[in-house]
Amino acid sequence: MSEAIIFDTDPGVDDAQAIAIALRHPDIELLGMTTTFGNVDADTATHNALLLAELAGHEIPVAQGAAAPMVKPRHPAPAHIHGANGLGDIALPAVQGRADPRDAARFIVDTVNARPGEVTLVAVGPLGNLAAALQLEPALIDRVKRVVVMGGSIREGGNVTPVAEANIFNDPHAARRVLTAGWPLTLVGLDATHRCVLDPARMARIAAGQGRLGEVLADSYAFYRDFYREMLGIDGCCPHDSCALAWLLRPELFTTARGHLTVATEGEAEGQTVFAPENRGYIEPRWSRTPLVDVCLGADGEGVVEWIAETLA
Amino acid sequence: MSEAIIFDTDPGVDDAQAIAIALRHPDIELLGMTTTFGNVDADTATHNALLLAELAGHEIPVAQGAAAPMVKPRHPAPAHIHGANGLGDIALPAVQGRADPRDAARFIVDTVNARPGEVTLVAVGPLGNLAAALQLEPALIDRVKRVVVMGGSIREGGNVTPVAEANIFNDPHAARRVLTAGWPLTLVGLDATHRCVLDPARMARIAAGQGRLGEVLADSYAFYRDFYREMLGIDGCCPHDSCALAWLLRPELFTTARGHLTVATEGEAEGQTVFAPENRGYIEPRWSRTPLVDVCLGADGEGVVEWIAETLA
Repeated sequence: MSEAIIFDTDPGVDDAQAIAIALRHPDIELLGMTTTFGNVDADTATHNALLLAELAGHEIPVAQGAAAPMVKPRHPAPAHIHGANGLGDIALPAVQGRADPRDAARFIVDTVNARPGEVTLVAVGPLGNLAAALQLEPALIDRVKRVVVMGGSIREGGNVTPVAEANIFNDPHAARRVLTAGWPLTLVGLDATHRCVLDPARMARIAAGQGRLGEVLADSYAFYRDFYREMLGIDGCCPHDSCALAWLLRPELFTTARGHLTVATEGEAEGQTVFAPENRGYIEPRWSRTPLVDVCLGADGEGVVEWIAETLA
Repeated sequence: MSEAIIFDTDPGVDDAQAIAIALRHPDIELLGMTTTFGNVDADTATHNALLLAELAGHEIPVAQGAAAPMVKPRHPAPAHIHGANGLGDIALPAVQGRADPRDAARFIVDTVNARPGEVTLVAVGPLGNLAAALQLEPALIDRVKRVVVMGGSIREGGNVTPVAEANIFNDPHAARRVLTAGWPLTLVGLDATHRCVLDPARMARIAAGQGRLGEVLADSYAFYRDFYREMLGIDGCCPHDSCALAWLLRPELFTTARGHLTVATEGEAEGQTVFAPENRGYIEPRWSRTPLVDVCLGADGEGVVEWIAETLA
């Protein structure tokens, strides 16, 4: 059965891999992309989303959204990880198409309203666009099919702070709004994505299978890989954003738990996702008041990266 | 080589086990106990510390300290875990001795000053007494031999909130003061203590080996065990506080990492210990500014509980 999705993204090297999957996989109907600041600024995110669709030979609506967090000041984009252009600073062809005239939040509301109960939101950047869409149309929580968020960390520790993952840290207030909204939601965080390492051999298969898009994926991967080698001592990259799509189509590759999520928005733990398993009692009830969601606590990493390679090779 | 210690405690069933070790182990010179609210109120803590020393046939100074947290309101003591009397609501004999006239902070300062460089503070409750001692005498940080704290959680999750361990949650402001003071410090938290389960067979050996004190340990253990069985599905108890002494005398049973600790004092993550490994870069330098300490990330649980049983049997 095909999954109709809106892909909310800040491409970004690992975003680009996930966008390629969303464009190629026969079981995904990509209704549009919405873009946000995060790995890059919002204009660059929109440029890259348009470019990746064109390289794949698709015309897909791209609607631009949040250029900054809801409350906190914006951090500079991490050019040392994704490159200043978001795709490893490789030379990129010119973009032909233009962004949708609507902003991201409006695009999400219109698209979900047109097909109530059918659309899954897959969000792999800071969550400002989904928060803004909820502000325009609170009834979205009953109209989406599901929300899948790449972000957060339960037991794994963080990647930008000792306890926070980048997407959540970049806009913790938006994340709190989105993760506690009460829609059917799955969090695919570092507990799962750090189990997955996309190795050079598999990336070579992907490069060979995707024409000009494959070259962009492979060349940007080479830049991103340097960061992983130097910072984490891993030969390869964690394909964070592709994991959200892997969960959507191959949930059996993940272990999940059901419970209550909250987000720390201030202080030393700013940006941390705090998870209270269902029916676990604590000293105060405050952690168990938010709506129930599903969170990934692990993944069959080898199974996930093989699924990515098979999809794109 | 013998370790001269002050044992700061809120007994408490697992505190009682640790106090028995501190009283019995030939390599520990117990200079005194200081008491705090936590598992019980401060008066009860003092009563129990005096009683346990008397049951072991020792006369040990006991100085009472903090009856409440530094900043936040006090939570009621967890009578369902330790009993209203802190020792599983078993009948207890009358206490003969009296507390030291000094308060805990003064006792700590005097005792450390009398033997500079020789005294280790082992703290297994909320950290108000150590924080108060630092306020009386900031130079303590250069005069103690070491500080060993049972508390916190790095990757294990919490026991009273999804991310906070009880001792730290009970007074996060005191914990922040103590854990970032700049003295030689080791944190023995749930990442280590949850690997250790003191089973009924070993407790039977302890009961047989400690006379009247052994009866108190065994009977209070039976009450505490019910809590573990119902809440956590474990047959036995985690001997949290004994782990701090096990680390002191048998550090090879633990895996540790060096880095920077901070404590979240507000919000959803209140009471969480946030650990930044040495030389790991994050998006902001704020997590790496506190003095370096050692934290336990794991333990040879079987080795630790066998050490406890051998010490007391």
